[in-house]
Amino acid sequence: MSSAAVQYARQNHTRFLDELKALLRIPSISTLPENKDDCRKAAETLRNELTRIGMENARLIESEGHPLVYADWLHAAGKPTVLIYGHYDVQPSDPLDEWLAPPFEPVERDGNLYARGAADDKGQVVAQIKALESLMAANGKLPINVRVLFEGEEEVGGETIANYVASKPADLKADFALVSDTELFAPGLPTLCVGLRGMIYTELEVRGAKTDLHSGMYGGAAPNPFVSLCQIIARLKDENEHILIPGFYDDVVPPSPEELAAWRSLPFDEEEYRKKEVGSRQLVGEPGLSVLERTWARPTLDVHGMPGGFTGAGAKTVIPAKAMAKVSMRLVPNMTPARAFELYQSYVQKIAPAGVDVEVRLIHAGDACIVAVNNRYIQAATHALHEVWGKDTVFIRSGGSIPIVGDFDRHLGLPSVMMGFGLPDDNIHAPNEKFNLKNFELGIESVIRFLEEVGS
Amino acid sequence: MSSAAVQYARQNHTRFLDELKALLRIPSISTLPENKDDCRKAAETLRNELTRIGMENARLIESEGHPLVYADWLHAAGKPTVLIYGHYDVQPSDPLDEWLAPPFEPVERDGNLYARGAADDKGQVVAQIKALESLMAANGKLPINVRVLFEGEEEVGGETIANYVASKPADLKADFALVSDTELFAPGLPTLCVGLRGMIYTELEVRGAKTDLHSGMYGGAAPNPFVSLCQIIARLKDENEHILIPGFYDDVVPPSPEELAAWRSLPFDEEEYRKKEVGSRQLVGEPGLSVLERTWARPTLDVHGMPGGFTGAGAKTVIPAKAMAKVSMRLVPNMTPARAFELYQSYVQKIAPAGVDVEVRLIHAGDACIVAVNNRYIQAATHALHEVWGKDTVFIRSGGSIPIVGDFDRHLGLPSVMMGFGLPDDNIHAPNEKFNLKNFELGIESVIRFLEEVGS
Repeated sequence: MSSAAVQYARQNHTRFLDELKALLRIPSISTLPENKDDCRKAAETLRNELTRIGMENARLIESEGHPLVYADWLHAAGKPTVLIYGHYDVQPSDPLDEWLAPPFEPVERDGNLYARGAADDKGQVVAQIKALESLMAANGKLPINVRVLFEGEEEVGGETIANYVASKPADLKADFALVSDTELFAPGLPTLCVGLRGMIYTELEVRGAKTDLHSGMYGGAAPNPFVSLCQIIARLKDENEHILIPGFYDDVVPPSPEELAAWRSLPFDEEEYRKKEVGSRQLVGEPGLSVLERTWARPTLDVHGMPGGFTGAGAKTVIPAKAMAKVSMRLVPNMTPARAFELYQSYVQKIAPAGVDVEVRLIHAGDACIVAVNNRYIQAATHALHEVWGKDTVFIRSGGSIPIVGDFDRHLGLPSVMMGFGLPDDNIHAPNEKFNLKNFELGIESVIRFLEEVGS
Repeated sequence: MSSAAVQYARQNHTRFLDELKALLRIPSISTLPENKDDCRKAAETLRNELTRIGMENARLIESEGHPLVYADWLHAAGKPTVLIYGHYDVQPSDPLDEWLAPPFEPVERDGNLYARGAADDKGQVVAQIKALESLMAANGKLPINVRVLFEGEEEVGGETIANYVASKPADLKADFALVSDTELFAPGLPTLCVGLRGMIYTELEVRGAKTDLHSGMYGGAAPNPFVSLCQIIARLKDENEHILIPGFYDDVVPPSPEELAAWRSLPFDEEEYRKKEVGSRQLVGEPGLSVLERTWARPTLDVHGMPGGFTGAGAKTVIPAKAMAKVSMRLVPNMTPARAFELYQSYVQKIAPAGVDVEVRLIHAGDACIVAVNNRYIQAATHALHEVWGKDTVFIRSGGSIPIVGDFDRHLGLPSVMMGFGLPDDNIHAPNEKFNLKNFELGIESVIRFLEEVGS
């Protein structure tokens, strides 16, 4: 079954891995202003790499944020055009002290490559590029027309790519998109993701006194913004994880009975998941719904941190003048970020305790989406995956959000093939992020065979 | 009326102020490990200064924490002995960006001296020392026997001095204590503090998953420790500031009708206090009780900060593995810290949401206390204060905690005269802490006249 391109990929695996490591050494954390130059460096590295392997028109598309990377190769007359998407930015690496090795010094251990961004998403971006390189090196050409568009703001809302896609530029004209930012449902199980949650990421800021006050002198008279914030958050969802914002569930479309049945047949053990992946005393969530239903098809609300006040070691007896909470909500079809934010904001203002001012800010947002599974690209993908992995593809959703998938559909009319090679235990967004080395290898081969299949 | 010592103080005021500034330049923040050497430096400065002015046996008393400073002068045969107490440590200076000038570069502005520790408590400690220096310089001796004991852990629970006092050492044998760590009720109004709240300062730590998780992938299944913590805190007190811990109020002794009547006659306008001191939209607190009652004679609960999770700029979609809250409670007679902590801890464990582990840690604690007003030292103090300030003394309580006052009573049998010269708007524990320059001057004179009065 192995094509010349697959052979090439196998022969060059060590070099491919070294090149991935080089990219992982660049701390391209998009949310931190101090890493702005690193983001540019990662973008330039990718642009240079795309040029080196034979892609054309490789360039950075500049913005106020981090640049997009574009390249194309459009010489497969009569063949479809793919728009290949990935992101070169990564999440912050804190808490640093929980990493077994420094986050930007990639190390191999137990068949995995550990580094921030290994699975999310540099490993997958490099797999795409190495597939293109292998095809080009083995055949002197690509089997279909290819456009590549990488972004550097996926972890911070993707404003630059969203604006660029919304402007419908000629150089994004394509027939479908290949998005590699998802994971296999289980090791060795080829997987296509066909549904994503949307999200709104917000900040709640509560202000009480005009300045920090001594909690001895003023305790009992001055409002405590942290207590007020806790009272607000405690009223956002109940202990069954049911969100208490009035009207929040109005637009929720439940999964079809067929989809639910397919999910039930997936190899998934909730107790195993609790023990191995989550590691908590017990799982939480809405009663009567499976974990997959709760994480894929139900809106959720999380608090990510509560900055402000005294956070050092020991004691400081202060009533802080203000407190903040980072709060996000995951959305499902057919909820919209605008409506969700409006409901949330007006509810928070309604329940705000006396004595404090509350501000609700939207940091970023993205739509939920569902992909139809009956198009030729999804079919070609399942064929390619069966060849490489020797198994039938499972169709899953993801609880995460890839807003660009909705944008590709809405603005460019492109169906997305979400073919990713991460694993559920890759610790993305957490300490000790990893990418399975075998998945990196088979990921490259999967993309090669997928493009060949579409072009055949 | 002015004694030779008072004359000396007035003549040397500029130098006294310079010496206070020098002490304020030492960032002796007791809670921060990186300022440990600064705390020692402040202690050594005070020891050297005590030796310089003619005190004897000046020395540091070492501990695992920050050293105590001791000195004495015991040549007033037949006269009482005072134990003079103050502290050289200060609160952290964050949030730094709200200071108009750097916290450890004292500046004079509008009749005030601005610096961290200016009022709490270095300005008052220096006032005590300068009173001793003036008495010694003017008369070649002191009017009564004097022991001085300064500590460097007042802001972090005072463990060293508590242990030292509890050991009842011979060199603390005295008749009464002079504690200068309080404030005037209003500018120009001589004030003795005769009641203090106690406290327990705690950390609540909530742990959910074994590691940080992606809120898209795991939102809806993994427990969110910040949400759990908010749910716990929201159940610690209601929106009327009533603490919901069962049994918490059982031991509360209300102030006497006479005390309440005296408080009502104090020059205090709650609306003015709200606007000028607190600056919040409205005050909070238990309905039907005055602000003074709420802050002096009722237990309260505050949250100082909630460390953990993501607190940077922008967005990180993480479900943190753990979250923490710094929570303290102020106690009133006859509550005990041990009992309050026990009730709090068992209540928190009882209401802890499913899926998370909760740990409750006691960081430090102090007893509430009430001082009898009919002893000869309080009487002498009111005479001295009348001379210096030209007004009758008011007796107030403080919402703050000075645990050592209870220790002096319990272990050494010493009544405390809490004669302090701060002002309610001194911003202690907050940005732009200040000490009124006139109060520094009259504070020195008040201590001089008080010691002369006791010795006469």
